[in-house]
Amino acid sequence: MTVYDLSNFAHRHLGPRESGLSEMLDALGYDSLDALTTAAMPENIVQPEPLKLPEPLTETQALARLRELAAKNTTKTSMIGQGFYDTITPAVIRRNVYENPGWYTAYTPYQPEISQGRLEALLNFQTMVSDLTGMEIANASLLDESSAAAEAVIMMRRANRKHANDPVVIDKNIFPQTLAVVLGRTRSLGIETILVDLATEGLPEGELCGVLVQQPGDDGAIANHQEVFDEAKERGAMISVIADLLSLTMITPPGEQGADIAVGTTQRFGVPLFYGGPHAAYMATQERYVRQMPGRLVGVSQDTNGTPAYRLALQTREQHIRRERATSNICTAQALLAVMAGMYGVYHGPEGVTKIAQRTHSMATRLAAGLRSAGFELAAEHFFDTIVVTVDNADETLSKAESAGYNLRRYSDTQIGISADETTTDEDIAAVANIFGAEVSESADEAIPTDIVRESEFMTHEIFNTIRSEMTMMRYCTRLANRDLALDRTMIPLGSCTMKLNAAAEMEATTWPEFAGIHPYVPAEQAAGWRELIEDLESKLEAITGYAAVSLQPNAGSQGEYAGLLAIRHYLQDQGETDRDICIIPASAHGTNAASAVLAGLQVIVVKTADDGSIDSAHLDEVLEQHGDRIAAIMVTYPSTAGIYDADVVEICEKIHNVGGQVYIDGANLNALVGLAQPGKFGGDVSHLNLHKTFAIPHGGGGPGVGPVCVAEHLIPYLPADPNGELPEDATPVASTLHGSAGVLPITWAYISMMGAEALTEATQVAVLSANYVAHRLKDHYPVLYVGLNDLVAHECILDLREITKNTGVTAEDVAKRLMDFGFHAPTMAFPVPGTLMVEPTESEDMAELERFITAMITIREEIAEIEDGKLNVEDSALRHAPHTVAEVISSDWDRAYSVEQAAFPVPELRVDKYFTPVSRIDQAGGDRNLVCSCPPPEAFELDA
Amino acid sequence: MTVYDLSNFAHRHLGPRESGLSEMLDALGYDSLDALTTAAMPENIVQPEPLKLPEPLTETQALARLRELAAKNTTKTSMIGQGFYDTITPAVIRRNVYENPGWYTAYTPYQPEISQGRLEALLNFQTMVSDLTGMEIANASLLDESSAAAEAVIMMRRANRKHANDPVVIDKNIFPQTLAVVLGRTRSLGIETILVDLATEGLPEGELCGVLVQQPGDDGAIANHQEVFDEAKERGAMISVIADLLSLTMITPPGEQGADIAVGTTQRFGVPLFYGGPHAAYMATQERYVRQMPGRLVGVSQDTNGTPAYRLALQTREQHIRRERATSNICTAQALLAVMAGMYGVYHGPEGVTKIAQRTHSMATRLAAGLRSAGFELAAEHFFDTIVVTVDNADETLSKAESAGYNLRRYSDTQIGISADETTTDEDIAAVANIFGAEVSESADEAIPTDIVRESEFMTHEIFNTIRSEMTMMRYCTRLANRDLALDRTMIPLGSCTMKLNAAAEMEATTWPEFAGIHPYVPAEQAAGWRELIEDLESKLEAITGYAAVSLQPNAGSQGEYAGLLAIRHYLQDQGETDRDICIIPASAHGTNAASAVLAGLQVIVVKTADDGSIDSAHLDEVLEQHGDRIAAIMVTYPSTAGIYDADVVEICEKIHNVGGQVYIDGANLNALVGLAQPGKFGGDVSHLNLHKTFAIPHGGGGPGVGPVCVAEHLIPYLPADPNGELPEDATPVASTLHGSAGVLPITWAYISMMGAEALTEATQVAVLSANYVAHRLKDHYPVLYVGLNDLVAHECILDLREITKNTGVTAEDVAKRLMDFGFHAPTMAFPVPGTLMVEPTESEDMAELERFITAMITIREEIAEIEDGKLNVEDSALRHAPHTVAEVISSDWDRAYSVEQAAFPVPELRVDKYFTPVSRIDQAGGDRNLVCSCPPPEAFELDA
Repeated sequence: MTVYDLSNFAHRHLGPRESGLSEMLDALGYDSLDALTTAAMPENIVQPEPLKLPEPLTETQALARLRELAAKNTTKTSMIGQGFYDTITPAVIRRNVYENPGWYTAYTPYQPEISQGRLEALLNFQTMVSDLTGMEIANASLLDESSAAAEAVIMMRRANRKHANDPVVIDKNIFPQTLAVVLGRTRSLGIETILVDLATEGLPEGELCGVLVQQPGDDGAIANHQEVFDEAKERGAMISVIADLLSLTMITPPGEQGADIAVGTTQRFGVPLFYGGPHAAYMATQERYVRQMPGRLVGVSQDTNGTPAYRLALQTREQHIRRERATSNICTAQALLAVMAGMYGVYHGPEGVTKIAQRTHSMATRLAAGLRSAGFELAAEHFFDTIVVTVDNADETLSKAESAGYNLRRYSDTQIGISADETTTDEDIAAVANIFGAEVSESADEAIPTDIVRESEFMTHEIFNTIRSEMTMMRYCTRLANRDLALDRTMIPLGSCTMKLNAAAEMEATTWPEFAGIHPYVPAEQAAGWRELIEDLESKLEAITGYAAVSLQPNAGSQGEYAGLLAIRHYLQDQGETDRDICIIPASAHGTNAASAVLAGLQVIVVKTADDGSIDSAHLDEVLEQHGDRIAAIMVTYPSTAGIYDADVVEICEKIHNVGGQVYIDGANLNALVGLAQPGKFGGDVSHLNLHKTFAIPHGGGGPGVGPVCVAEHLIPYLPADPNGELPEDATPVASTLHGSAGVLPITWAYISMMGAEALTEATQVAVLSANYVAHRLKDHYPVLYVGLNDLVAHECILDLREITKNTGVTAEDVAKRLMDFGFHAPTMAFPVPGTLMVEPTESEDMAELERFITAMITIREEIAEIEDGKLNVEDSALRHAPHTVAEVISSDWDRAYSVEQAAFPVPELRVDKYFTPVSRIDQAGGDRNLVCSCPPPEAFELDA
Repeated sequence: MTVYDLSNFAHRHLGPRESGLSEMLDALGYDSLDALTTAAMPENIVQPEPLKLPEPLTETQALARLRELAAKNTTKTSMIGQGFYDTITPAVIRRNVYENPGWYTAYTPYQPEISQGRLEALLNFQTMVSDLTGMEIANASLLDESSAAAEAVIMMRRANRKHANDPVVIDKNIFPQTLAVVLGRTRSLGIETILVDLATEGLPEGELCGVLVQQPGDDGAIANHQEVFDEAKERGAMISVIADLLSLTMITPPGEQGADIAVGTTQRFGVPLFYGGPHAAYMATQERYVRQMPGRLVGVSQDTNGTPAYRLALQTREQHIRRERATSNICTAQALLAVMAGMYGVYHGPEGVTKIAQRTHSMATRLAAGLRSAGFELAAEHFFDTIVVTVDNADETLSKAESAGYNLRRYSDTQIGISADETTTDEDIAAVANIFGAEVSESADEAIPTDIVRESEFMTHEIFNTIRSEMTMMRYCTRLANRDLALDRTMIPLGSCTMKLNAAAEMEATTWPEFAGIHPYVPAEQAAGWRELIEDLESKLEAITGYAAVSLQPNAGSQGEYAGLLAIRHYLQDQGETDRDICIIPASAHGTNAASAVLAGLQVIVVKTADDGSIDSAHLDEVLEQHGDRIAAIMVTYPSTAGIYDADVVEICEKIHNVGGQVYIDGANLNALVGLAQPGKFGGDVSHLNLHKTFAIPHGGGGPGVGPVCVAEHLIPYLPADPNGELPEDATPVASTLHGSAGVLPITWAYISMMGAEALTEATQVAVLSANYVAHRLKDHYPVLYVGLNDLVAHECILDLREITKNTGVTAEDVAKRLMDFGFHAPTMAFPVPGTLMVEPTESEDMAELERFITAMITIREEIAEIEDGKLNVEDSALRHAPHTVAEVISSDWDRAYSVEQAAFPVPELRVDKYFTPVSRIDQAGGDRNLVCSCPPPEAFELDA
């Protein structure tokens, strides 16, 4: 353990102190961290030298360096538009959501009882989106507008079975980055597309699967697509609309025009530009398609007391259940940003967002009128916030604008795009007009076509019409946060999720205006600080992983997988290996692996898991024997999803290479490798990382995630290209911007910079130590399912409940829910093995918290023993009734087989510091049967007083 | 009501919407806000014209303007010292305490049951201070080092009765600002002082009351004062030491040398420089003097269940009880900053703060050695962090240093002071040495005199030795905040305290390094932004109050009172009116008024309160008749402390002026005047304001406060001077720096700038409307004690419980504690009239929250009715047992006369959103009998499992 030194950030990041480390090492019988990890890991993966990283910075130094980098960015007024618009984040939301660990350190709400706050916030988001789009149902966010559009196309193919093999028509008038991502996706899936100018050409002849249009268009034009939609529907095609959410306060929404799917970004609802992301995209559809919709969906169900309760609905659609038959590979959402956008809607309400839209629109119309008066030609008569102006020389105008402090869009050699937004002022449009030698008009007519002016109401639910003062808004943010358990209150021992510390110093820079206020498509020199930070981060990640290059574009692990597999596929194609179309995936893999392989146009063959949790070597040999020349790749997670350093990973990699395949090492468990072994060196050709696991980006209640893809030298040409730049066919972009969720990268940069090589390595070792200690302390109470070399686990351990369930009826779920009564978030349930709990303590938990968890688990085992001993039926037990709400245990009518004290205070410390779940156990199946995915009316919550 | 407009901050600040305003106005029978306030106020105070303030800024504009101002400050490395040292605020503390509304919006912990979190944090602070100083007991902070030193002198006079009239010896080697404030205070109280150089001259002859020394001295020298102390004690004098807290990790603490009192600042324990404040000062003493000690003191008592529970101890010492016999006029503390300093101690622990001290010391010794080697002469051989170097020309050296990026101290024409601190780096001392043409030494011996090296342990309590990782620190901050009720969870309807919104946008700028990182004594041009902001704020406050000038120096309301009364006194003296020594104070006044008058050297005559709560006019006439030519001033609060616009305030002012006295209008209730009437115009000669009431600075759990003093033209020369500058005798400084708690002034600046004239006025009117509405809704349940013109109250109302108490035994305290079961902070208890509750809703609460409060009060009245009806004894009632803890109501042994449901859920909404106090009602008297004022051992909290 690093000796206490105030200038050492690692001392703050690591949980256990010297005494704790000794105690744990003693218990395990090792005399040093090195001895432990040497024993746990196969020798042939161990990296020979320490990581080559700069000396660690102190918190003060890191913040000073970040300020230097921030100062290298230039914050001009960006009126570029193209899917990114400046917006005002209400300070109350910035402070009480984005900067509040109660929100940002929370995990994905898979355990709904301790997630009612963020589920409510996401339900608000869904309700707002479905109202604004005029659709029946909306999901809890997608990754960005481009990938959402791609998902819409794939969803049309899935939902429109009759026309699944017919082409999809794509209107040319959509943003170039969207087109790039959509076409990348359709190409890899072999979906035929037809690009047309719908406004002039109409629909092409022949059978069609679907139509994708953008409203307003790339050129800002608002078109009434009703006729095209009617015709398409008549011909059996589905319709997807990429719609600007703010404009839908004024324009007839897609749902009312008969669209089947609407997608888009919600960035301008109070989420900073963030140099391109993270932002929440939305997808809305009609109820009949809900089971085809990708992404997470919050629904309303009931708890065991009949109280309405929120939960994630239709989880069976998700990739972690359906694997290669999944509807999408999307796993992470943009929860934190969706919460912010939803809160923005709650705060402004329908009249507020309408006024924002009207004001934005009037800025554009007044500028347009002024430019027209000065003799300029505009691309469109009808528009919302964006006009495209013809000039002699676009570059000259752009440079004039830049000197005046404005970034406009280079639409073509002779056209300039100008977008107004919430922040645009009278001074701004006057200054912009002045660049053109024009003057703005005092007033101007609306430029919305009269036949598609929105008439219908939206956001009529009470939640959008009651919270208007900052005091109530602050309390709403606090109240929802208080309903949930996040890292600010408890360890979250979630196997495979690495819920480590998200240090405040790491987070601070992300909201500085010099970082947060930069549009992704500004001229490169305006983002000099951003680029320097990103390049530096890339080189640090290369040093850690042993790969030759990194792309930070993928904005989720799933996108990293997709990008990595595409790189493999394109490489093989360039090598003439066009027959290689099989991706081998172990049975124990995370479902996303298979779904990503399918998306990348590969077929999946699953290899079995051996009894010890490792890959069944014999089965693998069989597969290679049979399909050797068709093998494109294997995807292996290392350490395995069983949390074990499998001994034969190097051999497996060699086997694949020997048949001519590529090795994809899933970096989900990199927290057990950093500083000890490098996937880029022990056999991997490509890996994705999860910066939101290993590298300290908070989980945000289910996103943002960042899933960089790292590749060996030969795959560099196939890394994702800039979707807003030149587009080589074999460097498919996967997100709307070159650097994906750039906005949160300072977190990882700060984490690595403040830790340095030695402490990063030590963090890995402490994570492994803590997991082994927990396994050691609990193994006599719950069997540990898998162990590796020297009976050690890696950074997590699986507790096997199956025997207990067989003997007593007590399930892993009962234990997970009972832990909530102790104030704990449950471990990972049923992954990778049903009937088990997977525990990952991470390096950031101290001994006291580890012991608190161990005590809870042992106490629960004692409760199980009572059932074993026949003292109680499981149905009558506190375990089955868990979690207990405050309203349940404070009751004069209590008549259960156990006492209220046992219900609420199974350990005495809870009398002093007690968290109650706001609802009791939630009916998951019932919620899926009666799907409600927007805010229920207030009456639903009425209390029997 | 301002129509909804997103660019209007007022819309966010004000609670009720249009519909709510109409509803409330209808209920009261007025058709507009103007009609209401016209009816409530005497005509002759109404200001004729709207406030003259600039157009309101939007949040975005205000933040942009603040960024402009911030950019005008220059952040150099300040090694000036002189009581202010740069420090590293751990980011986890900044985010989870200073920027967390759960901490900063909390009120003073007078209601201990809902304040256990902040009381624990303050107890940590006390324990840390008493450990470091080696004293038996420490208080929960004072305002700043200078005023703390002044308090020490006064306390010596109070405690040393035998020598009360003998002189106090003050060592010359103390900071000039401290000397200025101390001598100002002793002059006004007529305490004789003798300034000596103790190190060379020793104690003067004759009887002595006390001795005041500083360790290390003004010149950085550490002296062993043991002999002087021993002699002083022998001669019956008390000893006070102003000690640098960090140095006490290395130097024998004052307590071990026999000192009776230790004072100083705790700024360098993680609190930013803030251009001078707010910072928490400390005072520590021996137990025998505890009842003489000023300021708040947290103590440990028990709740009704015998659980250890924290509370403010010895409140009877406080000014609000003892009035003119009070031990001090101090009312506000620096709670938020004391919490931060305490958390810094918790996080670093004894070994951490020691290392910080040692590192700081080694920077100073290495620099000193280098300078000595280069032939420079140092003022002292023994020092901690500060050296004073002799040069040819101080100004030349300073200017050279400034060019190199360093601020040093101008100690004399030929001497430069240099102070190291926590942030000082090797590069810094090298650069500073370089300025002198010297080089730092690689190493150097310690420069602490060997006979006063600290040997004893400190901060040995568990709390300073368990929390080391950021994860545990974050959770500790969260856990304590969650125990308390602050504005982030509930209305705090505290009469006389104006708990309005503290908007996030107002708070943001205060932590920007360009504001927070400026040393108070930097060259003026480096603080250009600060000065511009402060001047602008002064002019805005002048416009609002109608006074000719404002000083922002007083860092609490009490200090404003003291400064204002001193201005009056010095003015009268200059007019030759030296006999005017009486200050008239109404019986209903806040106790601080009387205490401040005494401090300012005035005698107090109390005038009676009439039956309607106003000043008894006949009695006033009598007093004036009898003492007319001795009247220095009257202090009146307006609206009165009864919350009424007294009709005759103008006449009263005239009467005082007619006898030649001055009128001091206490601005505590200015929230009922802004935009409607100006104390500077309707009769006041001087007022103080409470920026932490009317002007949106948060209460911080009991400070920081800011109490600017505003004066008419003739009093301008008597405003507090710069304590670090020229010192005219009649412009007595009251704080350590010219602008007191400058650091939080951006909050008020932003509030006024974003509201503008119209909305500030409307805020006043809405505050008055809400108070009248609450009075109207509750008057049939609880009599409203006082009403004014047209039966209206001003901005608060007093509910009279005395009849209820007489009939049922239910006290105001019972009601206040029962409100906690509803999740409310209690209204003000027993002020200004015992047996009453004073309710002030402010303009920031919306209708829903007002109704929630009204419902709670009516529900409680129904519970009282049950006792009235003889169904229950008060002793057996939920009222008397309130508040109820979770451990109490979750019990199989419940056998009370009411149900657990009634205890916990008196209204059904609480089933869904319930706050439990962590302790039940606390034994106040018992705690005072057995005074424990440092952290109790963990065993005290052991649970009966």
